[in-house]
Amino acid sequence: MKGSNITTIPGARRPRVVVVGAGFGGLAVAKGLARAPVDVLVVDRRNYHLFQPLLYQVATAGLSPADIAWPIRSILRTQRNASVQMGRVTGIDTQRGEVLIGDRRLSYDYLVLATGARHAYFGHEDWETVAPGLKKIDDATLVRQRLLMAFERAESDCDPEERRRLLNFVVVGGGPTGVEMAGAIAELARGALASDFRSIDPKDARIMLIEAGPRLLPAFAESLSGIAKRSLERLGVDVLLGRAVTECTCAGVALGEERIAARTIIWAAGVMASPAAKWLGVESDRAGRVKVQGDFTVPGHANVFVIGDTAAAMDQNGRPLPGVAPVAKQAGRYVAQVIDARVRGRSGPKPFRYQDFGNLATIGRKSAVVEIGTVKMSGFAAWLLWSVAHVYFLIGLRNRVIVALNWTWNYITFQRGARLITGRESDELPMAPEQDEIRRVS
Amino acid sequence: MKGSNITTIPGARRPRVVVVGAGFGGLAVAKGLARAPVDVLVVDRRNYHLFQPLLYQVATAGLSPADIAWPIRSILRTQRNASVQMGRVTGIDTQRGEVLIGDRRLSYDYLVLATGARHAYFGHEDWETVAPGLKKIDDATLVRQRLLMAFERAESDCDPEERRRLLNFVVVGGGPTGVEMAGAIAELARGALASDFRSIDPKDARIMLIEAGPRLLPAFAESLSGIAKRSLERLGVDVLLGRAVTECTCAGVALGEERIAARTIIWAAGVMASPAAKWLGVESDRAGRVKVQGDFTVPGHANVFVIGDTAAAMDQNGRPLPGVAPVAKQAGRYVAQVIDARVRGRSGPKPFRYQDFGNLATIGRKSAVVEIGTVKMSGFAAWLLWSVAHVYFLIGLRNRVIVALNWTWNYITFQRGARLITGRESDELPMAPEQDEIRRVS
Repeated sequence: MKGSNITTIPGARRPRVVVVGAGFGGLAVAKGLARAPVDVLVVDRRNYHLFQPLLYQVATAGLSPADIAWPIRSILRTQRNASVQMGRVTGIDTQRGEVLIGDRRLSYDYLVLATGARHAYFGHEDWETVAPGLKKIDDATLVRQRLLMAFERAESDCDPEERRRLLNFVVVGGGPTGVEMAGAIAELARGALASDFRSIDPKDARIMLIEAGPRLLPAFAESLSGIAKRSLERLGVDVLLGRAVTECTCAGVALGEERIAARTIIWAAGVMASPAAKWLGVESDRAGRVKVQGDFTVPGHANVFVIGDTAAAMDQNGRPLPGVAPVAKQAGRYVAQVIDARVRGRSGPKPFRYQDFGNLATIGRKSAVVEIGTVKMSGFAAWLLWSVAHVYFLIGLRNRVIVALNWTWNYITFQRGARLITGRESDELPMAPEQDEIRRVS
Repeated sequence: MKGSNITTIPGARRPRVVVVGAGFGGLAVAKGLARAPVDVLVVDRRNYHLFQPLLYQVATAGLSPADIAWPIRSILRTQRNASVQMGRVTGIDTQRGEVLIGDRRLSYDYLVLATGARHAYFGHEDWETVAPGLKKIDDATLVRQRLLMAFERAESDCDPEERRRLLNFVVVGGGPTGVEMAGAIAELARGALASDFRSIDPKDARIMLIEAGPRLLPAFAESLSGIAKRSLERLGVDVLLGRAVTECTCAGVALGEERIAARTIIWAAGVMASPAAKWLGVESDRAGRVKVQGDFTVPGHANVFVIGDTAAAMDQNGRPLPGVAPVAKQAGRYVAQVIDARVRGRSGPKPFRYQDFGNLATIGRKSAVVEIGTVKMSGFAAWLLWSVAHVYFLIGLRNRVIVALNWTWNYITFQRGARLITGRESDELPMAPEQDEIRRVS
């Protein structure tokens, strides 16, 4: 198998490690190889690393995109064995050991795929136009546009029925993203927007969080799910549990027989791995993830690793690893050790052990739920911990200072600093035909 | 003439002033009417007021869009007689006194058009796709995308000829925007990007500023034009004076016989007023501006005012008023006084006098030219004055703090905080056919 037994020979070309994706996992690999006798090439279709956990704050106008993103080149600037290329991977030639980026071909000795996941509609991909998800910067600015435009449209519409639809917001999916989005929309409507309109009262906005399972935040302890639900309800969010969305249209959602009229629907209900399995021509699970071995190699491809949300891996106890940032980071560091050992002809590291630091989710401006081992926290103290942890994990001093400052400002003034409706009009909320009727407002 | 002699009768409907455009002029009108017995309705196609003088810093990745924009609703939140509607004006019915926004109609007693200007190509509108201008947030993020993508493309291209084209940047127009853009691109290449690439050296970038007239900054004193030119040249910008661009394509620009290969062209050479004259069916000058009377009313329409970059007005000495923010602000305040007086049945204010506070333009990170009356300044002191003035004129404490912080950070570290390539791929640099050939980089 090509590349699996490469060792460095003085004067010979150094093995090349191509890392696809500069998320938490990919960056951890690249940085972990800083002292390894290899050349690292990081490929990403974006020029920045994105701190996805705070994407919902861009979507709800609390932060600017640049506050939670950092150029990949800057992160790896001082790492002399690393280079970066921007490009969208279109395939992989495992025979020749090449990554295909359109017509460009990048040869590799070791390949690490850390290409993450996208929101998915599992057979209802047509719902995406009416119910956008939240995985990329462009998703977040689109959702921000839809949210803010709904209030703008309601302000200038004279039909009470349509106003109600415009002020109904549905979030589908009760995981951390859904919980955080629903809380943030409620606070946007009741806080920052509260006094800005004349014809409507943004406080009339109705925010619904719909979860098909029996409780919110299924990855958390059950007691915290209850606390999260009550916290959201205090913010004025209607939490609907055990209800599956059977249809999404530009007029609202259907839950079986019941229909909820809403102009704005946000999808936080499911993810699908990037097409890494397809590129490799290997087996994947239902969510499109590549089944990997204990050292994150792909069966039959000893020099190809898959980590993060793209991998279906098991922890030391045989339980599937969750699709969260710490898993990707730890796997990335581990894979760097494996490659380093192989290149140097040494024995590899001990088997991978996932160290679970716990779960955090925030609900609005002063509440959060935190679970660290057996410790469970909620309320203001948990929110402070959540805030500090998120600022700490941001890359770069500037981003930390700017985000901390924005949050302090938002907290004190209830205002949001990034309430911009940008993008083209074609991205705006699709309107039903009756929307185009003549409406006189004066 | 409808609305020209309206006075308030107790119990009667208050006159309605519709202000189209929430730039410097429009906002000044709305705020100036805070205590007038009228209802003010501000209409804008965006939900934010934009601080246009700093747009070039968004285009060169120094600031985020939200740092220089502020929701119009928030600005007018506490002004009880003001409301805001988002909408794109499509026409004006002066007979019925109505502003048309698609099918919506907004009736007015007084109308103020402050809709600004757009960059224009004067008969070469097809140049826009290859040479974008800089008037809106979306323009700035598009230019930022093109600038950063040029370096990304150069890094992964193996053809030295194409690399050179990609690292050639042409700015057309030697007014303040062109001068500031050229300086900022030079510093981006020699500062923030300098160590981030491996195959190219961003310092090899060649930045050309092309001006058809005999000197840069024609609105400034001639001595300052010379200083600006030398400052730019010290930053490594090639300044070409007295050279008119006769052609723009995706491969570069032509200056008569001479051709300059460049993948990135930025247009700062001319503006065209918004179509206010067309909406009103009245006379306009060559730049599309409505010829107004001394009190900014449109001849034949005593209740319709045009101000700012959309108006062709004269100062007290019969000289045309320049298209700058202070003119728009002062005219806005004046028109508010005129309307207030008319509504109350009092005599109007004294004739308008433009108070010229001077001109400022910055050239890179520690140089600027400033002209205040007979005082001329340049260098670091002028740059400090420029920075303080711009922070001061920003709306909102948050924006002032964030911009000041960003500038301090940029100044100390030479880094840029907003180096994101966003937007769709279809917006990217149009590529010549030969660009699609197979290029191997490994």
